[in-house]
Amino acid sequence: MEVKVLKDILSANNQIAEQNRRLLASKKIMAVNLMSSPGAGKTTLILRTVEALQGRARIGVIEGDVSSSIDAEKLSQAGVTAIQINTGGGCHLDASMVNSALANLLLDDIDILFIENVGNLICPSGFDLGEHLKVVILSTPEGDDKPHKYPMLFANADALVINKTDLLAHVNFDLDGFKSTFKGVNQRAALFAVSGVSGEGIREWAAWIMEKLASVRSGK
Amino acid sequence: MEVKVLKDILSANNQIAEQNRRLLASKKIMAVNLMSSPGAGKTTLILRTVEALQGRARIGVIEGDVSSSIDAEKLSQAGVTAIQINTGGGCHLDASMVNSALANLLLDDIDILFIENVGNLICPSGFDLGEHLKVVILSTPEGDDKPHKYPMLFANADALVINKTDLLAHVNFDLDGFKSTFKGVNQRAALFAVSGVSGEGIREWAAWIMEKLASVRSGK
Repeated sequence: MEVKVLKDILSANNQIAEQNRRLLASKKIMAVNLMSSPGAGKTTLILRTVEALQGRARIGVIEGDVSSSIDAEKLSQAGVTAIQINTGGGCHLDASMVNSALANLLLDDIDILFIENVGNLICPSGFDLGEHLKVVILSTPEGDDKPHKYPMLFANADALVINKTDLLAHVNFDLDGFKSTFKGVNQRAALFAVSGVSGEGIREWAAWIMEKLASVRSGK
Repeated sequence: MEVKVLKDILSANNQIAEQNRRLLASKKIMAVNLMSSPGAGKTTLILRTVEALQGRARIGVIEGDVSSSIDAEKLSQAGVTAIQINTGGGCHLDASMVNSALANLLLDDIDILFIENVGNLICPSGFDLGEHLKVVILSTPEGDDKPHKYPMLFANADALVINKTDLLAHVNFDLDGFKSTFKGVNQRAALFAVSGVSGEGIREWAAWIMEKLASVRSGK
């Protein structure tokens, strides 16, 4: 019975995700679902990406949080078009929430849409939002064992961004060891090591995003 | 329909939580539900607490994770009695999982039972496990805005442990400002600032735990 309810919810979600995908395609927008633990640096990564792509791509943001509009305000203050979704108690965004947000954004002014999911390494993994890319951010203070503890999210990522490399000297995170063991969880994900504070690695990450945008637009 | 299912689940959970509470009381064990984001330092806090209370209280641990037994192994290697629960895809422990774990622990050898919940700031908040204390750990690299973004978990905490104070010089976390604004979310929680690395603040935290153990045992 519980399982039945869950299946119904997921199937309804997938139908709306498909609608989102069609709408995004018609507007030539690439959507990126950003997922991480609370405080791993999703919003800061978006801000650094906006700076890096200034004049090259127009960015819009859907902000997902249980409560508050702290992140959407931070983005708006930086001049980024952002819309906040509050899930109440929900631990992830779903396609229907994204669908409502899309209706409230000027889609003709957006090339890349970042969807900042709720801070959570578990719940977001099962829910298709209609996005083109799933990107997971892991910050170095969280430790290098997270892909083994939360395998679903990491296994399905198109890219993994290791953030807060500026703290590597102060925390227990073996970057080289991590890069090799991560292959055991996900072989195909692109891997970036960045710092939202120092800007290290942001150029490589932004170049990859632009490459993916070109692929999406050429229909590859 | 969905709401009905959720209510049934919560009511069944509460009944088993009550069984856990009675069992713990009969064994004079104090149970502490430890909750935080992934990588905030729950396991390290337990290890430091075991060291601080050496010879004063016997500690047992129930380890909750989606996958892997990394944390239970870490504790066992340090000589701590630990039992691992894997939730599969579940984003929190429930009373029934704790009930099964209790049946597999030598309860006569335990004074304080730490229940390390799944790394998550959302899902664990609704589920009573039969514990005496709810303790939330927030690590400084996560940022000082988390209580406003995840109010439910923080509002119901008996104590908040701010961990990784050793990183304060390198991250954006205003400790004094945080302490005053946190009162707006939760007035009654005890507040500790600790470092699992340097050991700062562990003595105060451990003293509070011993005080609470004495209260539980005297039935206050």
